[in-house]
Amino acid sequence: MTDFAWTREQFHIPLGLIYLDGNSLGPLPKSTPARLERMLSEEWGEHLIGGWNTCGWMEMPKRLGDRLGRLIGAAPGHTVVGDTLSIKVFQALAAALQLRPERRVILSDRGNFPSDLYMAEGLIRLLGDRHELRLVAPHELEDAITEEVAALLVTEVDYRTGRRHDVAALTAKAHEMGALAIWDLAHSAGAVPVDVTAGKADFAVGCTYKYINAGPGAPAFIYVAPEHAEEADPALAGWLGHASPFAFEQGYRPGEGIERMRVGTPPVLQMAALDAALDIWDKVDMAKLRRRSLDLTALMIDEVETHCPGLRLATPRDGTARGSQVSFRSEHGYAIMQALIDLGVVGDFRAPDILRFGITPLYIGEAEIHEAVEVLARILRGALWDQPKYQRRKRVT
Amino acid sequence: MTDFAWTREQFHIPLGLIYLDGNSLGPLPKSTPARLERMLSEEWGEHLIGGWNTCGWMEMPKRLGDRLGRLIGAAPGHTVVGDTLSIKVFQALAAALQLRPERRVILSDRGNFPSDLYMAEGLIRLLGDRHELRLVAPHELEDAITEEVAALLVTEVDYRTGRRHDVAALTAKAHEMGALAIWDLAHSAGAVPVDVTAGKADFAVGCTYKYINAGPGAPAFIYVAPEHAEEADPALAGWLGHASPFAFEQGYRPGEGIERMRVGTPPVLQMAALDAALDIWDKVDMAKLRRRSLDLTALMIDEVETHCPGLRLATPRDGTARGSQVSFRSEHGYAIMQALIDLGVVGDFRAPDILRFGITPLYIGEAEIHEAVEVLARILRGALWDQPKYQRRKRVT
Repeated sequence: MTDFAWTREQFHIPLGLIYLDGNSLGPLPKSTPARLERMLSEEWGEHLIGGWNTCGWMEMPKRLGDRLGRLIGAAPGHTVVGDTLSIKVFQALAAALQLRPERRVILSDRGNFPSDLYMAEGLIRLLGDRHELRLVAPHELEDAITEEVAALLVTEVDYRTGRRHDVAALTAKAHEMGALAIWDLAHSAGAVPVDVTAGKADFAVGCTYKYINAGPGAPAFIYVAPEHAEEADPALAGWLGHASPFAFEQGYRPGEGIERMRVGTPPVLQMAALDAALDIWDKVDMAKLRRRSLDLTALMIDEVETHCPGLRLATPRDGTARGSQVSFRSEHGYAIMQALIDLGVVGDFRAPDILRFGITPLYIGEAEIHEAVEVLARILRGALWDQPKYQRRKRVT
Repeated sequence: MTDFAWTREQFHIPLGLIYLDGNSLGPLPKSTPARLERMLSEEWGEHLIGGWNTCGWMEMPKRLGDRLGRLIGAAPGHTVVGDTLSIKVFQALAAALQLRPERRVILSDRGNFPSDLYMAEGLIRLLGDRHELRLVAPHELEDAITEEVAALLVTEVDYRTGRRHDVAALTAKAHEMGALAIWDLAHSAGAVPVDVTAGKADFAVGCTYKYINAGPGAPAFIYVAPEHAEEADPALAGWLGHASPFAFEQGYRPGEGIERMRVGTPPVLQMAALDAALDIWDKVDMAKLRRRSLDLTALMIDEVETHCPGLRLATPRDGTARGSQVSFRSEHGYAIMQALIDLGVVGDFRAPDILRFGITPLYIGEAEIHEAVEVLARILRGALWDQPKYQRRKRVT
């Protein structure tokens, strides 16, 4: 049973700030600094090299993978943590193409996060430009799944609009056509209930610095379906994915199942922060979180539509078709977001015209939404966004 | 000017421990916990998503790359930090093969660290098995550099024996034959003076958790020579290597120079620990460090050869031909090392018969070496290694 008053107490939110950007970088769990202090002073400081065994560092990628696994419907032993999401996308794509050697198409949609598409492009160049990255509009994706497709690369929740694909239906179609499905769960893990097992995902990848709250640069995760686990070639075949890393054999032998998706030395400090963040998630019921997220996103939509004429909803009105964010369009989007941030309401802007707000029930409730919309309405009424200081583009938006 | 009494004061070494394994995982700098506490509570906690700009997180991979660059002779702007060493080996190899498209051989030696060879194997599989990974004995490497070779992949200092290649001479031969040279500096950065510029390395990679002391899972680095910087294809083409990451363009355009070797979101917590470790390195004169390392490794060799009959030196006696570690061979190596660790002298064992000792002048001096050899001699005299408890192999050695 999830008590959202309790979860809110677990985070440090700066006084007076309304933080609607947890879909970009989650806030600091209050327990994280002490966990890192222990990791540094007691584990690294006292155990030094021995920490790999005695403090369990070497096992963390699988142990944390299993804890994350619960949030995405993966059975223990099929998820591992490490590297970045882009690297894990590359591994999943390379393995999928190897499992479908006679096919030449990677299919994705133009709403996908660009890095997923860049990694696919890079892989295709490496493979000698014999494959095609085929992009269609998000609503055309299902029809575009044909027998030419080796791998469907689909991000469940659109990073700009919050539009949610029915990944289970897309995957069923993919399998019908003999293709494999890779789910990118960057905006799903910790945001919506995910079931890679029931939905029959072949591969799933995601990051932990957004809804999971594991901190800037937190590691990614990868899930490989049991039926592919012993067949998939990890492509990035590092020593910690070897069947016997510490035998220092000259030739590569892939580790058992998911172990082979490990590459190099895992980021122990970042994993300690993930460990601390997962202590909160262990107590969260995803069905309850989803109900609350739907209520809060619906409230945000109602309030903005009532008090902020001029903003156009970019997120599906149908709850089942959205993740845990709400986005609006405005030609003045960039300047409006700068004014909002200046007044203590943090969302973010995505080119060309999207204002997006992460609605994260662990630490956001009705009061924050009412206050955020009040500030937004004030900015729009007073045309505060038209001040010169909000018109300058920052280098990184 | 380096004062090694001062540098020793900068590290936390557990009371009574003689730590000769800094070539595997460096000890905790005393300033690191406070740096991480600031990173967590002041930066992430207070700035949240704004930290990427206001706290300079986005620039850290290049800023830290430049600070590391000084230790390897790289001009500013040509080194970047991130991912793991295995990933960076893959990027360097892929770029080298792309720059020598008509050649089919990756040349390395059987003394190289296995993960480098595994990554090469994985890349070759991806590229359709049209390339060959050719391995020779370390002393045969120079003669094996022929016009067939696309890339020479050479680790300067052997992880088991401490034998040091003359990488500048090997690189000169490689260039004469039209090949490119990739230097793996895992056991060189912070151990011996390195000059990628004078030595004309085409690519150089390394890690920061050994001699650099940046902590377990610390990020890797990659250097690309200026003449290749605008030509090299990063292969792992992630969004943060894009020319304009925050424009979220659909197609990949490589970033300027070294920027393109960035892949995904960088590990900010691990980078903060690297930042703290580099505060010490900023005050170290590498020529002085090398002189002291040579004196200390020579002392270790003398003392062991005097007091520990039965151990056979595996490290070159000629100082110019070794790094900053000393290794000995014994058929009882594993058990002897377990006994040593039990008695507070930490080195490590590498199969099949190597006892290796990292001699790191920042925090190791004559007294530690005398004491370590005394303990070692006692173990050998009393045949303490023959006790049953030292005969069991741990899972991770």
